[in-house]
Amino acid sequence: MPEAMKKVTVAPLLAVRRGIAAIEFYKTAFGAVEKFRTESPDGAVVAQLSIGDCDFWLADEAPEHQNFSPESLGGSTVRMVLVVDDPDGVFNQVVASGAKSLWPVVDQSYGWRIGRVVDPFGHHWEIGKPIEHSS
Amino acid sequence: MPEAMKKVTVAPLLAVRRGIAAIEFYKTAFGAVEKFRTESPDGAVVAQLSIGDCDFWLADEAPEHQNFSPESLGGSTVRMVLVVDDPDGVFNQVVASGAKSLWPVVDQSYGWRIGRVVDPFGHHWEIGKPIEHSS
Repeated sequence: MPEAMKKVTVAPLLAVRRGIAAIEFYKTAFGAVEKFRTESPDGAVVAQLSIGDCDFWLADEAPEHQNFSPESLGGSTVRMVLVVDDPDGVFNQVVASGAKSLWPVVDQSYGWRIGRVVDPFGHHWEIGKPIEHSS
Repeated sequence: MPEAMKKVTVAPLLAVRRGIAAIEFYKTAFGAVEKFRTESPDGAVVAQLSIGDCDFWLADEAPEHQNFSPESLGGSTVRMVLVVDDPDGVFNQVVASGAKSLWPVVDQSYGWRIGRVVDPFGHHWEIGKPIEHSS
């Protein structure tokens, strides 16, 4: 197989209620870029977004296809780990955009400066970076 | 801010039961590469894996910290979209490794050749690629 054929990617797809509002939230809160969107006649969306070089997807939930939003299940089974140079600034921006702070950004014993929010759609985001030690 | 300071990444973190077994499953089924692992005295793990150029994390669930496995919630709120050159071959390999086929790999009207499995830990994976049209 030629090397050029071996491109492999994996990206998460977040199930939500109110998909169109979720797209706008992720743009405002995280500076996400919209790469693709398709809307069904009933208003359900599937969208591909990116933060930095990393893609993620979101789509309106469809419980009949086993696609459940956190609001439907009462929690989330996957959280998003966002690594940025300024966790405090991004955390504050995300909370100001409507996410709820679960744990503020602090230095953790495992070597990360990190905090956690839950967004208005029930998805959880850890926002942090590894702590750099001066040598 | 210097350009070199602007590296931003986002990656999903899958909550599971039996984390050590999950690491082995993702290696066998998907050819995932283990980049980092830490184990607690009680056997709980946090691991960073990669498929292609894309990272993901997994960790044993901790419901007291709102980290729920799909087994605990009875479904998943995020599914993983795996894009590969040979969806049929990868799908078969993943099912042979112990995942359950939900929908076989077929050409979908929205322009993807894609199928879906649920893995032994309750996480869902769509395995496919955009259909190329000869011009």
